Amino acid sequence: MTHEIAVIPGDGIGQEVTPAAVEVLEALDVDFSFTEAEAGDAVKAETGEALPEETYELAATADATLFGAAGETAADVILPLREAVGSFVNIRPAKAYPGIDAVRPETDLVFLRENTEGVYSGHEDRLTEDVATLTRVTTQSASEQLAEFACEYAGPESEHDGFTIAHKANVMRETDGLFRDTVAEVAADNGVDTDEVLIDAFATKVCLDPTQFDVIVCPNLAGDVLSDLAAGLVGGLGLLPSANIGPDRGLFEPVHGTAPDIAGEGVANPAATIISAAMLLEYLDYDEEAAAVHAAVEETLADGPRTPDLGGNASTADVTAAVIERL
Amino acid sequence: MTHEIAVIPGDGIGQEVTPAAVEVLEALDVDFSFTEAEAGDAVKAETGEALPEETYELAATADATLFGAAGETAADVILPLREAVGSFVNIRPAKAYPGIDAVRPETDLVFLRENTEGVYSGHEDRLTEDVATLTRVTTQSASEQLAEFACEYAGPESEHDGFTIAHKANVMRETDGLFRDTVAEVAADNGVDTDEVLIDAFATKVCLDPTQFDVIVCPNLAGDVLSDLAAGLVGGLGLLPSANIGPDRGLFEPVHGTAPDIAGEGVANPAATIISAAMLLEYLDYDEEAAAVHAAVEETLADGPRTPDLGGNASTADVTAAVIERL
Ligand SMILES: CC(C)[C@H](C(=O)O)[C@@H](O)C(=O)O
Ligand SMILES: CC(C)[C@H](C(=O)O)[C@@H](O)C(=O)O
Repeated sequence: MTHEIAVIPGDGIGQEVTPAAVEVLEALDVDFSFTEAEAGDAVKAETGEALPEETYELAATADATLFGAAGETAADVILPLREAVGSFVNIRPAKAYPGIDAVRPETDLVFLRENTEGVYSGHEDRLTEDVATLTRVTTQSASEQLAEFACEYAGPESEHDGFTIAHKANVMRETDGLFRDTVAEVAADNGVDTDEVLIDAFATKVCLDPTQFDVIVCPNLAGDVLSDLAAGLVGGLGLLPSANIGPDRGLFEPVHGTAPDIAGEGVANPAATIISAAMLLEYLDYDEEAAAVHAAVEETLADGPRTPDLGGNASTADVTAAVIERL
Repeated sequence: MTHEIAVIPGDGIGQEVTPAAVEVLEALDVDFSFTEAEAGDAVKAETGEALPEETYELAATADATLFGAAGETAADVILPLREAVGSFVNIRPAKAYPGIDAVRPETDLVFLRENTEGVYSGHEDRLTEDVATLTRVTTQSASEQLAEFACEYAGPESEHDGFTIAHKANVMRETDGLFRDTVAEVAADNGVDTDEVLIDAFATKVCLDPTQFDVIVCPNLAGDVLSDLAAGLVGGLGLLPSANIGPDRGLFEPVHGTAPDIAGEGVANPAATIISAAMLLEYLDYDEEAAAVHAAVEETLADGPRTPDLGGNASTADVTAAVIERL
């Protein structure tokens, strides 16, 4: 069966790393049909729309979308795209790679971030000159859906041993309380082990010893900040992939941005986008191919060639060719 | 003029480190009158109230309050106490001390955390079986008051060179937008330099290089999580003090908790509480005495004696005596 893959390079180095990842996918024995679409600052400057209707529609109908990066318009692009694929979970692995400078090289974490609600639900009001409010929404149904996913991801059949629920229910008693209780209950019903941690305590503890955690399930904004914290521990956003998973489709994107300082020079590191493409393969049940891409990227990170961000002087094309050769 | 000082040891090691800090204050030539009051798990178990009315009243009328720690009831104690003193800013320094193990020993940051609103404003509803909401509140007036404080704290007359505004206004456009714009405007009006950073980007950047930041001004929950992250970078919560400042009074507390594993053994490290007491002295304009306490604690941390958490085998009393001797 042919899978329809939407490709949205976006701005800056998105224009360089996204085609690199597509090249890697094309080098595999997979039945993909690629369609490219525009989003981001550049298309907004031209048309007034950061996310053209046809791009939204493409993501909403394709089996999977590979997205690069967007500049100033990032929130206007990525939040609707996550909605387009109906994504209820954002998977964010944060792992240090051998040979890459990291504050905490022993870090190997996966965040399962709720991807639809919390403060992202977008209900804000300027009530008076003085007062603005935002309605933070937590639903039992979204918490359940996330928890069911987490139970598959980190349950007895997996390589993980349950998960940690991160929350701030000592202050947000109703909302994070509902989140925590619902997730814990689904896990208990599925025979999956969980423990819990306050998000502030997590921030301290993960710096002191990241190996005390493995899979972390958390609300939307907490996942945003805590996964970026973990990115800091493994040496930066440069190598981190992510997957936004919905019931019928997914959206895959590197965690890094547009890197305007090096955009256009052909030296952007394509690793995070290629690893995101490996997550796309996994999602579409091309498990062997996914494993091959992961292994090829790891070898290339270890033995080179390396782009300037990792101290080398190779180009995006050199690294991409090296990954393809190692497949 | 005699200053009335409320002393609330609370639970666990709070009962050990708070009297230690009071001993240090008593060793100075200051005109303080101490009154002790109860709060926390123990008094709740006895009376049903984690924060008895008379304790609240004492904090609401004393010139300054020194608080130790509370256990399970922490939120029920500390949030009303902050309100009792009318605290609009929580000052949280995070600095690594020479000779103390730290992931990032070069860390030297101060968080100025908004202390009254955001998700802490406490308006939550369970709308239906499925839906819970929390109203996050941001006011121009609270943002202004915080900004005015920050301008004094980090402005031209200070040892700092302006401050960084941390926010998530790309998602919380009205609320964090109002916060960011108000704080930036007050700073501009006062000739104080500012820059800004998204809280997720801050989490990555501060791990990669904490020296790129100095004073960080942020909303309530962001300050909670990001200051605890900084605590992780300097080696843990063990040495971190904090000051909750209101228009007419203040509340001073170590950032650490009750440490139930070592409570009652007389070996808790009193440093964070003694440094919090130094912040109390500063607040009451005993600048020389404050400097003497800071110096005595730093010397003691460097040369010992040390409590077990820092690899020594001294008692709380030994460390307290050593600090007093060095005053
Ligand atoms: C661009 C922004 C809206 C987005 C988010 O907050 O989710 C980004 O920080 C991310 O984590 O992908
Ligand atoms: C105990 C809790 C309510 C409190 C907070 O969230 O402010 C604590 O984490 C702190 O930072 O002092």
